[in-house]
Amino acid sequence: MADRPRVVILGCGFGGMGASHSLRDVAADVTLLDKNDYHTFQPLLYQVATATLEPETVGHSIRELVHDHSNFRFHQTTVTGVNLADRTVEVEDMPPIPYDYLIAALGARVNFFGVEGAQEHSFPLYTLKDAVQLKNHVLRAFEEADKNPDLTDHGALNIVIVGGGPTGVETAGALAELFSMDFVDDFPDLPVNEGRIILVDGAPAVLHAFNDDLRAYAKDALEQRGVELRLGQHVTSVGPESVTLQSGEQIKTRTVIWAGGLQASPLAKWLGIEPGRGGRVPVRADLSLDGHPEVFVVGDVAQAEDSETHEVLPQLGAVALQAGKSAGRNVLNCIEGKPTEPFHYRDKGFMATIGRGAAVAQMPFGVSLRGTMAWLAWGSVHLALLTGWESRMATVIDWFWDLFQREHGKRIHVEE
Amino acid sequence: MADRPRVVILGCGFGGMGASHSLRDVAADVTLLDKNDYHTFQPLLYQVATATLEPETVGHSIRELVHDHSNFRFHQTTVTGVNLADRTVEVEDMPPIPYDYLIAALGARVNFFGVEGAQEHSFPLYTLKDAVQLKNHVLRAFEEADKNPDLTDHGALNIVIVGGGPTGVETAGALAELFSMDFVDDFPDLPVNEGRIILVDGAPAVLHAFNDDLRAYAKDALEQRGVELRLGQHVTSVGPESVTLQSGEQIKTRTVIWAGGLQASPLAKWLGIEPGRGGRVPVRADLSLDGHPEVFVVGDVAQAEDSETHEVLPQLGAVALQAGKSAGRNVLNCIEGKPTEPFHYRDKGFMATIGRGAAVAQMPFGVSLRGTMAWLAWGSVHLALLTGWESRMATVIDWFWDLFQREHGKRIHVEE
Repeated sequence: MADRPRVVILGCGFGGMGASHSLRDVAADVTLLDKNDYHTFQPLLYQVATATLEPETVGHSIRELVHDHSNFRFHQTTVTGVNLADRTVEVEDMPPIPYDYLIAALGARVNFFGVEGAQEHSFPLYTLKDAVQLKNHVLRAFEEADKNPDLTDHGALNIVIVGGGPTGVETAGALAELFSMDFVDDFPDLPVNEGRIILVDGAPAVLHAFNDDLRAYAKDALEQRGVELRLGQHVTSVGPESVTLQSGEQIKTRTVIWAGGLQASPLAKWLGIEPGRGGRVPVRADLSLDGHPEVFVVGDVAQAEDSETHEVLPQLGAVALQAGKSAGRNVLNCIEGKPTEPFHYRDKGFMATIGRGAAVAQMPFGVSLRGTMAWLAWGSVHLALLTGWESRMATVIDWFWDLFQREHGKRIHVEE
Repeated sequence: MADRPRVVILGCGFGGMGASHSLRDVAADVTLLDKNDYHTFQPLLYQVATATLEPETVGHSIRELVHDHSNFRFHQTTVTGVNLADRTVEVEDMPPIPYDYLIAALGARVNFFGVEGAQEHSFPLYTLKDAVQLKNHVLRAFEEADKNPDLTDHGALNIVIVGGGPTGVETAGALAELFSMDFVDDFPDLPVNEGRIILVDGAPAVLHAFNDDLRAYAKDALEQRGVELRLGQHVTSVGPESVTLQSGEQIKTRTVIWAGGLQASPLAKWLGIEPGRGGRVPVRADLSLDGHPEVFVVGDVAQAEDSETHEVLPQLGAVALQAGKSAGRNVLNCIEGKPTEPFHYRDKGFMATIGRGAAVAQMPFGVSLRGTMAWLAWGSVHLALLTGWESRMATVIDWFWDLFQREHGKRIHVEE
């Protein structure tokens, strides 16, 4: 075994999952590292935050995912550095791990863009831990207001969401349904209908990656559900009890959800190279690092150009998954002495849902869907992409429950 | 509304649930208090601890349970005292709550019986929080050993369970299956088969409430699954890396599960009365407090005698549920000027499961079951008793998954 090439994969998000798929049972020893013991299905995080799905449906055991990969080892540890010269990965609580080939899929962190108070007082929504914390905070805010009605006057029932991309829009829509379907019954002593859900974005429209029609539809669908929009303006500061907007408007709230942008993990710094946009690591057409054909970088941490369109690829799960698979195949090509292949992203479209029966889907070749059809498509695609049949079945039950019983069944707060 | 009698129910375990059932939609204003926002289905806690069920299946939103009870209010708060003279309940973060009738169903806490180090170094298993913490600890212990193989020599893979009642036996059996079905595959670098699961009890047999046949069957079933038994001896001390038994035997372990006994919540102290066994509050035949016909005490915090058999009733969920219902009906009788009724427990039997296809059930009239039939009965009864159809469906999926895929699907650790 000692003379088999050693491949190390950093991170088990969509990028690491894709790479693992390409490297299963090949003639190489693969070590997979992640700081958590689970893979996160990020597109459904907001459903954990809004009490529709339980964390165990959206987080999947990494050991279960790879324990049938005969050539894989997994360690739960935090990566602290990469030594390109020695070809080793430094981790928090183990000796450095040597590699012959490296696939770095370390993802990103939330970017607060230096907005005053944002880091201290807002709730990001990028990890499963974030989603659980946000859910617990919202439930706690309502329980506290129930015991102390004065808090309502201090904005305890208001939620401000910063960022009008899919995460912000989906969270706003789901919160509106949580308020109108559950909290009005759950909290008979609270004026739940006075609780405001406000979505703020610097762009003049929500879902700026979608076409005009879909953006207009999403805006209407949000407003129909009672979500207030503050478009074309930024948040200038976040405090413990309020948010201030560019216009000077101050909104009383104790719950600010930050869905506002990403910065790459500090891989570029470790590698000693000049970072690209958002701290990302520029890569070549085959996703390898310039001057280091043994190192591949994929997913939210990579700044890759599509080999056919020459456009910089967006930070999307689908891009990360395909790039991970491609990087895995390129490692195999290197091992077998074949040339690597440039990466081309096959765009299968993207979707966002605003609430039951209301979604938008923008497909390739200019096809777009909205309303119930888009919503059914959204549900089917996400079910199909979820990891593991058990999670899929649990999700079907939870969604049907949500739809027909009009109840979000996961609204409990288990302290740890 | 002001002249309607005010009923306060303390605690939403089985006792509080029973009382809530009897008082739904009656001509009284009911306030329900609990320190958590969920009711816990305690018989399945060990399945959360052993990664078969997710917490959301075993914990059910109290607000959802009572939001269709037109005369109910719920507050999530911790009770800190009862003032019998003023007829008020003191809570942590609200003004005192007045009552005309009180039903106290405050449950119990784990009793470490003064064993040295037990409180500091062992994991109780009585609450949902306990179950989540225990699961996370076990997963973390294996992940740590995976990164640092020396820990295995220090007992990182050993688990000692103190207490041979249903909780201890069911946990031991479920851990044995978690080790042999999942961890052996999940941790290929660890000698999982050398991990020991040791059950300690002071009595000469496990499940002392069951008959001789069932006890012998349970002992065999545990041993077949590799569980080591240390019967007829007590634990004398618990340290961070070991447990010492009465025999002098020292077992290296970092995971001690305390399933060893209960002490009642401090209600007797608050009421200023002499506590009974285990700190419980002695009650009259109708479950009311001597000299205070407006106060009823039920469940693990009560020391009640059955009105027909005159035996002290055991601390069981089924007793608490029936007593809660009875106390609720007696409050109604008081309101309507009718005499109260003495409480009689209808024993429907009790059960414990050791693993797939292996359970014991002791029914009334001397009927007993063991093996697959008892296991099917155990599963059906627990499913039927679970709160809410969504939880039942989720549990069916999880159990079938566990049975046919031989995988515990919830083995992830989400830090909060």
